[in-house]
Order: sequence, then C-alpha cells, then structure tokens
Amino acid sequence: MHTFSELLKVFKKNFENQRFEKSPEELYSPINYTLSFGGKRIRPVMTLMACEVFGGNISTALPQAIAIELFHNFTLIHDDIMDKAPLRRGRSTVYKKWNSDIAILAGDTLFALAYQYAIQAETRLLPEILKIFNQTAIEVCEGQQFDLNYENCNTVTVDEYTEMIRLKTAVLFGMALKIGALIGGANGNDAQHLYNFGINLGLGFQLQDDLLDSFGNEKVFGKKTGGDILSRKKTFLYIYSLEQSNTTDRKRLLYYYNEKKIAPKEKIDGVTAIFKKFGVEEVARKLINNYLRRGLQTLKQIDASKENIEQLKDLAFKMINRDK
Amino acid sequence: MHTFSELLKVFKKNFENQRFEKSPEELYSPINYTLSFGGKRIRPVMTLMACEVFGGNISTALPQAIAIELFHNFTLIHDDIMDKAPLRRGRSTVYKKWNSDIAILAGDTLFALAYQYAIQAETRLLPEILKIFNQTAIEVCEGQQFDLNYENCNTVTVDEYTEMIRLKTAVLFGMALKIGALIGGANGNDAQHLYNFGINLGLGFQLQDDLLDSFGNEKVFGKKTGGDILSRKKTFLYIYSLEQSNTTDRKRLLYYYNEKKIAPKEKIDGVTAIFKKFGVEEVARKLINNYLRRGLQTLKQIDASKENIEQLKDLAFKMINRDK
Repeated sequence: MHTFSELLKVFKKNFENQRFEKSPEELYSPINYTLSFGGKRIRPVMTLMACEVFGGNISTALPQAIAIELFHNFTLIHDDIMDKAPLRRGRSTVYKKWNSDIAILAGDTLFALAYQYAIQAETRLLPEILKIFNQTAIEVCEGQQFDLNYENCNTVTVDEYTEMIRLKTAVLFGMALKIGALIGGANGNDAQHLYNFGINLGLGFQLQDDLLDSFGNEKVFGKKTGGDILSRKKTFLYIYSLEQSNTTDRKRLLYYYNEKKIAPKEKIDGVTAIFKKFGVEEVARKLINNYLRRGLQTLKQIDASKENIEQLKDLAFKMINRDK
Repeated sequence: MHTFSELLKVFKKNFENQRFEKSPEELYSPINYTLSFGGKRIRPVMTLMACEVFGGNISTALPQAIAIELFHNFTLIHDDIMDKAPLRRGRSTVYKKWNSDIAILAGDTLFALAYQYAIQAETRLLPEILKIFNQTAIEVCEGQQFDLNYENCNTVTVDEYTEMIRLKTAVLFGMALKIGALIGGANGNDAQHLYNFGINLGLGFQLQDDLLDSFGNEKVFGKKTGGDILSRKKTFLYIYSLEQSNTTDRKRLLYYYNEKKIAPKEKIDGVTAIFKKFGVEEVARKLINNYLRRGLQTLKQIDASKENIEQLKDLAFKMINRDK
C-alpha cells in the first residue's frame, strides 16, 4: 500500500499537467490558472488512499479524485467572490484578476467538469457515488450560506459553528473517503464508516486551522498569525470566547474584533489576551483530540488489513496534529 | 399520446407545488421564489414528450424533466447577476431582491439539486444521461461566456452569433429531448436524431425571440417591442445588419444602438429603420423556416409511430411559429 506522499505524487502527476485547452479562452484561462495554484490536494489523496485500503487499484479512483479536487476548486472560486478575498495561496483570486462574472462562470464550469470526472466509474457504482456527490455539493452550499449568515451575527453558538464547519468542510472529507472506498470495493457499511472517519477528520482539521491561525508558530505555519482576527473571521476561538464572556469581556472582545481603527498588532494582542483568559487554546486542543479519537474509533469497525488501516491512522495524525 | 398542453399540466402539477423546506432559509427562500415564477416550462415538457414518443410512461421521465427545469433556473439566476437584470417575468430577480452572494449560492444549489433529480433513472441509463447532462452544462457556460465576450464587441459575425445561441440555448433543447427519448426506450441513433431536432428547434426558437422583440405584435407578444434595442442586446437582427452595413450605415446603427442620451422611442425607431433597410425581418423569417425544415427532416429518420411523430411536429410549429 502506498503512503500519503506517494499517493500525492501520483495525483499531482495525473492532475497538474492537465490543462483544459478549450474555447472560449476567457472561460478556460481562469480555470487553468486556478488549477495551477497547487494546494495541499488532501481530498483527492484521501480518495486514492480509501480505494487502496479496500484492495482497489488507485488508477480506478483517479477520475473521482480529480472530480473532488475540481469540485473543491469550484467552491473556492465562488467563496472568494463572496468573501471579497483578493488573494489565495499568495496569488490573485479569479474574481480579482478577472472579474466576478468570469469567476461565477469559471466556477459553474468547474462544477460541471467535476461531474464529468465523477461519472467515470463502473455503471453499477454510479447511483451510490453520485448520491453522495450531490448530497455533499448541496451541503457545502448550505454551509457557505450559514457562514454568510453568521458574518454579521454575534450570537452564534459553538454548536451552530460546528454544524457550519461540518457542512462547509467536513462532508467533503467524508465524501472523498467514501467514494474512494466504494470504488475500492468496500461494502456499504465500511464505506459509511470511512465517511464518519472523514467527518471527524474534517472537524478536527478545521479547528486546527483556526488554532494555527492565532497560535501557530509563524516560522513553521508559513504565514503571519492573527489573519483570522484581522479579517474578523468567526472562528471557534472567537465564538467559544464570546459564549464564555460576561458583559465586560464581551464588550472588550467585540471592540477589538470589530473596531476598524485599531492598529493590527494591538488588535491581535487585544483579542489574543481574551482568548488566553478563557484558555481557548487548551479547550480547542482537547476538542481536536476528541475528534481524532472518535475518528480512530470508527477505524476499528472496518474490514481491512491492519497494515492498510495504519495508513488511515497516519492520515488522521497528519490532518489533525499538523503544525502548518 | 398526450398533447403539449396535457403534458404541461402534468409537469406543473408535479413541479409547482414542490417547495424545498430546508435550512438555511436564506438559501432556500430564493430557490422557492425562483421556482414559483412560472415560466413556459417548454424544456421539461419536451422531455416528457420525447419519452412518450418512444412508448415510455411519462412518470418515468418526470425526475429528469424536473432536473432540466432546475438546471435552466440555475442558469437564469446566474445570468441575471451577470446581465445586471432587475426583472424577470415581471418580478425582481434573485440578485436584486436579495444580493449577488445569495444569488450565486442559490444558483449553485439549484445546479446540485438538478443532479439529484437527474440520477433518478434506471442504473443502466445513467452513463448516457449524465454524459449529455454534463456536456450540456459545460456548453451552456461556454455560451454564456461567448455572450459576455460579445457584449462589447462590434465585429461579431452571424456565424459566431449562431454558435453562441447553439451553446447558450439550443443544446438544452437537444438534451431535454434526448434524455426523454433515452428514458422512453429509444435506441442511441433515435435519441441522437431527437437531439438534432432539438438543436434546430432551439436555434429557430432564439431567432424567433429576437424577431418578436423588435417586430412582434405588442398586444399578442405581451410586452413592449424594442426591449433588446434599449438594452443594447446583440441579437441576430443587429449582427446581421452590422454585417451588411457600409461605413455610413454602420455609424448610424452604432450611434442609435449605443448613444445613451437618445430618447427610447427615437432609439427604437432609428434602429428599426436600419433593420428594415436590410430586410432583416424577412431574412430572419427565412432562416427560422430553414431551421424548422431541418428539424422536421430529422423526424423522418426516427423509428416511432406516425401519430407520435405528429406531436413532435406540433411541438416544432409551436416553438418556431409562435407569436408570443
């Protein structure tokens, strides 16, 4: 069985040289530009890994791995319009480099291209694969809408936040693993176990992301900490602190988070001080480990070789105890 | 076999009472709002009709008919953002009533919902159905991009325009008929003949649309003529006239079409005078009849009862020699 980095290499080789040489150029340029960005490619690797865990040949899961990465990139292009994000992975976003009309259409096209790859499987597997693909696509949209709703709302609870990241992030991890498993020959139960494994990984992954942004080691993390604070992102750290706050803490937190005239460093320090007051870093780490534990628990139920399950465990630790 | 209006009644009964009662409300309200607009529902009726032509029971094609109508509505929501259209069918567009973020997401969700219905067919038919569904989705995006490209371009040829409306409009007619045929039990050749029939119908339909907007009978057409001229839409009439123009005519046409300070009536009169000079109404009618003839020609090749083919002929005349 291949390791994560071996699978990543296989995926990159099959994906990153691929260009859509079609007309109109105005549509396909932003698509090719987006796909050339790189990125961690975690989701497609999960698909390949899940396929191999159940004895499948990774080449059979390659179209679905590509479908999932295309789908993920479609959501990024549309999210960047809504978030008015000028940069992604250090480069101009599509809507900034071109315009939002082109970004809408390039996203729509990527969504359709994703389906073109998703259907490249044995016919008997199509109903199951497409059912989870459609359901996930709808849920990711729902998650993004919740995210937009919460942007100007200061009464979001940790439960609501968790449901939002489940929809926006975790279901795609679940789907990537489930589809890989189905193609690899897993039975329905095992495919569902891998889905649940993915959900836990996704939730832990996102919390870890929130944590690294405020408490990461800048040298290892590769970017300045405090970005989420400066962009007033509703993270677990913020929502948990707000939930714990008395009236004064609440006022303080809202002041530092929302007041635009405060200098960046003062803002980050002000918010981080409140995070620290509520021990939010420890709370988050505990929660992350909970998700890790629950994820590993689901692996005990699947019918695959011990050696193969080791790879999934490695994946879990890679996703969750990462420092970048 | 049912008539067009009987099939329309069946479709409406199964579609228009349906509401998506899901959360978040901010996402599903604009979707339900859009679907309650009504509309001609031509495309889904085509699917039901094609199914019945080959002996299928229309209930088996209902999910795909719904899928096609959902897909069509997804494209309308996104197009309205790009076209900055405030109204559709006399009511506020989603992006105007809510905002463009919500319109992007509501469209994306409708696209995914469309696939949820599209896959409700016999497993053995899924590869063929989804292949044409994906291809069409991609082509419709390409067509919309060409449309955007041509907005600020005065050298578009009639051929380029025709290819644009093939992609933006006709392929959806072709797909609606082809999928219905496949579900009805048509063989691959006959399904393809119906696709080609649909392409010709779609091209004729769009030209007719251009024609009615400038030369329609306002009382029958139900809206004021000249709307396309006032919104500077690149129609067949405009592009053909531009292609035929000498330098002076060209200046005149561009002046009346683009100069913002001219009163609406003067603008419409100025442009229509040039259209008339080039006999554009007759040229368009001839072209429309060409598409009608070619469409009817394809029907001679299909293996279905004479009575059933009569319904398709009726459809062609309904689509093409319509006056509203």
